Amino acid sequence: MSNTEARITLAVDAMGGDQGPQEILAGVSKAVNVSPRNTHFVLFGQEEVLGPIVEHDLNLNSNQVSVRHAPEIVGMDEKPIAGIKGKKRSSMSLALNALKEGEADALLSCGNTGCLMAGSAIRLRTLEGIERPALCTIWPGRERYFTLLDAGANPHAKPYHIVQSAVLGSNYARVALGLVRPKVGLLTIGTEEGKGNEVIHETHSMLKDIDGSIINYAGLIEGFQIFENVVDVVVCDGFVGNIVLKACESLSKLIRSFLDEELRRNTLRKTGALLSKGAFKSLKQRINPEQFGGAPLLGLTKNVIKAHGSSNQNHICGAIKIGLDLVQHDMLAQVLDDICETNEILRPPNPIQHSSPNS
Amino acid sequence: MSNTEARITLAVDAMGGDQGPQEILAGVSKAVNVSPRNTHFVLFGQEEVLGPIVEHDLNLNSNQVSVRHAPEIVGMDEKPIAGIKGKKRSSMSLALNALKEGEADALLSCGNTGCLMAGSAIRLRTLEGIERPALCTIWPGRERYFTLLDAGANPHAKPYHIVQSAVLGSNYARVALGLVRPKVGLLTIGTEEGKGNEVIHETHSMLKDIDGSIINYAGLIEGFQIFENVVDVVVCDGFVGNIVLKACESLSKLIRSFLDEELRRNTLRKTGALLSKGAFKSLKQRINPEQFGGAPLLGLTKNVIKAHGSSNQNHICGAIKIGLDLVQHDMLAQVLDDICETNEILRPPNPIQHSSPNS
Repeated sequence: MSNTEARITLAVDAMGGDQGPQEILAGVSKAVNVSPRNTHFVLFGQEEVLGPIVEHDLNLNSNQVSVRHAPEIVGMDEKPIAGIKGKKRSSMSLALNALKEGEADALLSCGNTGCLMAGSAIRLRTLEGIERPALCTIWPGRERYFTLLDAGANPHAKPYHIVQSAVLGSNYARVALGLVRPKVGLLTIGTEEGKGNEVIHETHSMLKDIDGSIINYAGLIEGFQIFENVVDVVVCDGFVGNIVLKACESLSKLIRSFLDEELRRNTLRKTGALLSKGAFKSLKQRINPEQFGGAPLLGLTKNVIKAHGSSNQNHICGAIKIGLDLVQHDMLAQVLDDICETNEILRPPNPIQHSSPNS
Repeated sequence: MSNTEARITLAVDAMGGDQGPQEILAGVSKAVNVSPRNTHFVLFGQEEVLGPIVEHDLNLNSNQVSVRHAPEIVGMDEKPIAGIKGKKRSSMSLALNALKEGEADALLSCGNTGCLMAGSAIRLRTLEGIERPALCTIWPGRERYFTLLDAGANPHAKPYHIVQSAVLGSNYARVALGLVRPKVGLLTIGTEEGKGNEVIHETHSMLKDIDGSIINYAGLIEGFQIFENVVDVVVCDGFVGNIVLKACESLSKLIRSFLDEELRRNTLRKTGALLSKGAFKSLKQRINPEQFGGAPLLGLTKNVIKAHGSSNQNHICGAIKIGLDLVQHDMLAQVLDDICETNEILRPPNPIQHSSPNS
């Protein structure tokens, strides 16, 4: 039991998600097998549900996995504040508390996104110098993966918030994608000088100010360029990011079901589809990569990872890997340095009142 | 030559687009064959280029098709104002003039979008009571097609502009999709009361005010609902609309090329793909339907249709059909009525200064 290496503890909200605790715990089980021995998993949820799965179904190592009882469950349809404040003994709420109290280094949930974001904002503070958190997603591009943020944490973003997202996203791309100097692009319409809107013009100018020293700013990019790997970090406000993310997820599902329908239309097509079924399986994995099953909520004092509600055990395992990577690379310390430097550079020409969230 | 029926004249910018005049004129030729005899096409472009194609290659009926010489061409990379003001004798510019002077009822161009929008704004006025034009696109949904606007004409939209888009889009959906009471949805993030941002809250309230009498307002919708045919008309500001449109177009191309790569990876897959090739062809047509090759710039005193730069002859023919439908259904008159009624309803509680475009 004694271990001189620093122990890493991951809190898991084991009751959230569409697939139920069985699938989440199967994901934890996979993660246990591929994680260092100094990793500990605390599963939050109803003991009578989780206990039998942990002990009998999965036979999880009790040195690495423990269960913390949480009688309540935040439903997938609950409203953000009601779900968190109204259910203080839910798996999500107690997991957030454990994170806040330093009992865990990172948290994973595939539960209600709105509640997780609201709960994180209420229970955890933002890192010093950061005004708003940002949800950061990883997407498949033509040649390699890229990150897009904010995917919906802050739908009222001011230019300075988008600049902070650029710093946060760059740090995340370094850890999650292994890039040394990830290229950052600001999402807009039309890349000519003067196109876009006021928020874009101001953000663009601030990003140019921190280019080189803190981020590697590649300039403005349009919607059609995001999948072409023109940049590694696409930044936009949470309103645009959330709509683009959901529209693209939905379009990708639509194309898959159109393809499925067309392939079943006659015997010839069915036969062909059977022969090339490996291609469809690979396609699915390329579009929805399991190794990037989680999206971190960046800018907080702790690492919070959101996995999709529909995550399977492989997505859960991928999301856990992301959480552990963030802890191991101590991304939060690097973010703190970068944000401090950003504020130093931007404060003189662009006075920002950090005390007020409405500045 | 004498014809008692009202003659419809369509001006065609025959030099724009990526595929060259040959493809555009092939599209016109297809359209001539399926259009009423009272339809006349005026092709704007270099006489020495268009003449031989019209007379020899396509042998187009000279009673229905005429060529108007325009020595200059607006390039696909030119800046909006420079392309229009700097090239007064371009095919696009002269076609816009013909529309302005009443020599044509509608205009089709697959040239530079920015220049066409700027040129339309400069040369043509907006309909009385309308402040800004909106670009309206047709998208494939799970069960049927739907419209989305504004796709980029106005990236600084105020709530009132988005309300006008709802009225414009409803009228367009009636003509282009044949719907009697198209359902309108306002694109946002999260449909709970209070989610979204200020512009959304104000727009939502105004849309509720004109629900029933002028539009059929179904409320807020999220990005993942747009392809699910929850509504027939998706409204949003031009910044969001343009980014979503381009991201989705680009994602759809990416999925197609991933699929193509996967299907070529080994002989078994290649054989399967050959057998089911009909499915891939149908899929392409479902995702990029040729009958909706054009997007109208709505809200102007004349019908302006933008076709994609990469349009083939079938897309061109589809876009022409849209232009003719708008003229035949006299959509502009209906829009004028609806906007007048909208302004009557919204003016008392929401005083709007129609004289100033910055109101």
